[in-house]
Amino acid sequence: MTNSPLPITSADIDAAAGVIAPYAVRTPLLSSPALDALTGARVFLKPEVLQRTGSLKFRGAFNKLSSIPESARAGGVVAFSSGNHAQGVAASAQILGMPATIVMPSDAPVSKRERTKGYGAEVVLYDRYTEDREAIAGAISSQRGATLVRPYDDPFVMAGQGTVGREIAEDLAAMGLAPDIVVAPASGGGLIAGVATAVKARYPQSSIIVAEPEHFDDHARSLRAGKREAHSNEGRTICDALMALIPGELTFAVNQRLLSQGVVASDAEVGTAMAFAFRDLKLVVEPGGAVALASLMAGRFEARGKTVVIVLSGGNVDADLYAQLINQV
Amino acid sequence: MTNSPLPITSADIDAAAGVIAPYAVRTPLLSSPALDALTGARVFLKPEVLQRTGSLKFRGAFNKLSSIPESARAGGVVAFSSGNHAQGVAASAQILGMPATIVMPSDAPVSKRERTKGYGAEVVLYDRYTEDREAIAGAISSQRGATLVRPYDDPFVMAGQGTVGREIAEDLAAMGLAPDIVVAPASGGGLIAGVATAVKARYPQSSIIVAEPEHFDDHARSLRAGKREAHSNEGRTICDALMALIPGELTFAVNQRLLSQGVVASDAEVGTAMAFAFRDLKLVVEPGGAVALASLMAGRFEARGKTVVIVLSGGNVDADLYAQLINQV
Repeated sequence: MTNSPLPITSADIDAAAGVIAPYAVRTPLLSSPALDALTGARVFLKPEVLQRTGSLKFRGAFNKLSSIPESARAGGVVAFSSGNHAQGVAASAQILGMPATIVMPSDAPVSKRERTKGYGAEVVLYDRYTEDREAIAGAISSQRGATLVRPYDDPFVMAGQGTVGREIAEDLAAMGLAPDIVVAPASGGGLIAGVATAVKARYPQSSIIVAEPEHFDDHARSLRAGKREAHSNEGRTICDALMALIPGELTFAVNQRLLSQGVVASDAEVGTAMAFAFRDLKLVVEPGGAVALASLMAGRFEARGKTVVIVLSGGNVDADLYAQLINQV
Repeated sequence: MTNSPLPITSADIDAAAGVIAPYAVRTPLLSSPALDALTGARVFLKPEVLQRTGSLKFRGAFNKLSSIPESARAGGVVAFSSGNHAQGVAASAQILGMPATIVMPSDAPVSKRERTKGYGAEVVLYDRYTEDREAIAGAISSQRGATLVRPYDDPFVMAGQGTVGREIAEDLAAMGLAPDIVVAPASGGGLIAGVATAVKARYPQSSIIVAEPEHFDDHARSLRAGKREAHSNEGRTICDALMALIPGELTFAVNQRLLSQGVVASDAEVGTAMAFAFRDLKLVVEPGGAVALASLMAGRFEARGKTVVIVLSGGNVDADLYAQLINQV
């Protein structure tokens, strides 16, 4: 571990907060007596399901697109994404008047694909298991002069996602509270890197925990190994938003320094958390968005008696899968 | 119309706010870019689905139970309710250490019945179409020395529900905004009476609109007639929470003075609003809780260009009905 400067600072997140303020929803910090009773912790939920486009990804996308110089805006943007970053980029491009092309896996939830088109983007499908999304996006970028908007490994994206942590810190401070633990999910690690940067700046004693789906535990593995390691790539998960193979380079530089540990939740635990959110929180949470809550409910870290913040990162789930999950429990 | 004193004042609501503060969730005021785009209005949602027990009813119940003198608390409380008031009373009684008996219709949603028992209350079922719930509750009250907690026609209950309006007014004022229109649903009219009292105290120019299910339009009829009138009692509705036959006496004394108009929404429109809330708001809203939103989306009043507040009053819906409604649209 070195003391070399990290890719983002809390000042970058402060700047991002100003950039996104006119368009992003400042989501509240919610409490749930039912969840407190269940866990014995004082839990606060950061419901990014209420964010514009239904996930936190609008924050980073809008911050990134706003950083593109006027001269490059006519060429538009291109992104690869399983759906939430896609919507964030498409909605941001629509607001800023830029054309957007999104490269999405053909097995992404239909609702995510339709919503991305609904924001005016062109959607190009690829096969998640046989084709290289980065190569496809790179080709489109070259042909059209479009700026590539990476889903996590970009300081503007990371700083935008970090506004989630900044708001958590602000709202807790206003209540005179300090978080013991903050848990957020990770795919490439942009959200958790931004959250860790913002929260640790104000609360250096807090523990930041990254939650991942079972089998997709590349952050947990990498934190243990002290270097970026891929997951086994042998499992399946209902968390379509959290399938990145390996932590990002820039994100892991931050996460290695600031995170305390990685935890996982199984599909069954994620389903239980989604059903709890339906029944007791009245929030629609998608599988990937429920992983942090699932890890809390499954007892993957010691929460009793502590002030715990759980990020519910997104709520874009197809109605048929949702119906199945809330009815089975 | 006379100037005789009304059953509650905004000072009663201020007092209730202090009473419920340690236990009630102070729900946020949410905005939704998707809903603004759809309606052309600046819409704020007051999501009482996030309230303790999943509906606004906890507010009035807790305020009422807190007003019961120590000497009468051992006898407990009894209430009749289709489910949300039941949970509010049961949860409040549990917090205050009082026994609670709830008289519920046998066709109330299973989840509401189970949740009421979950708060430690005894549930007594009755047939909505052949038995008199007031008589049953009255008998229990006499036998056990239990205090009857009416669902709406009680100043403490009305003042408690009015804290919804007080928070709306406070949060809008903090943003430097004034509401043109505030819409909330009504069964017996306690919520809308409290909301109207609190909002009109700060914003006398605002219009308060009551929303009801089609066929259950007793408030709309009564406002037109200038006196309490029952609905036709001939229809059916999926809005199990909003089936009262006639406005309350105390509530209508307020509502006649303060409301601008009544609007209705059909079951199909309510289903569409619930599906919209699932897809775009990521909030679980029950049929009765979605009536105000449905009336906005169906264009039942002129909203374009206006600042409109919609109360989403509850989210306690069975998973199977919910699955059916979000999948059909």
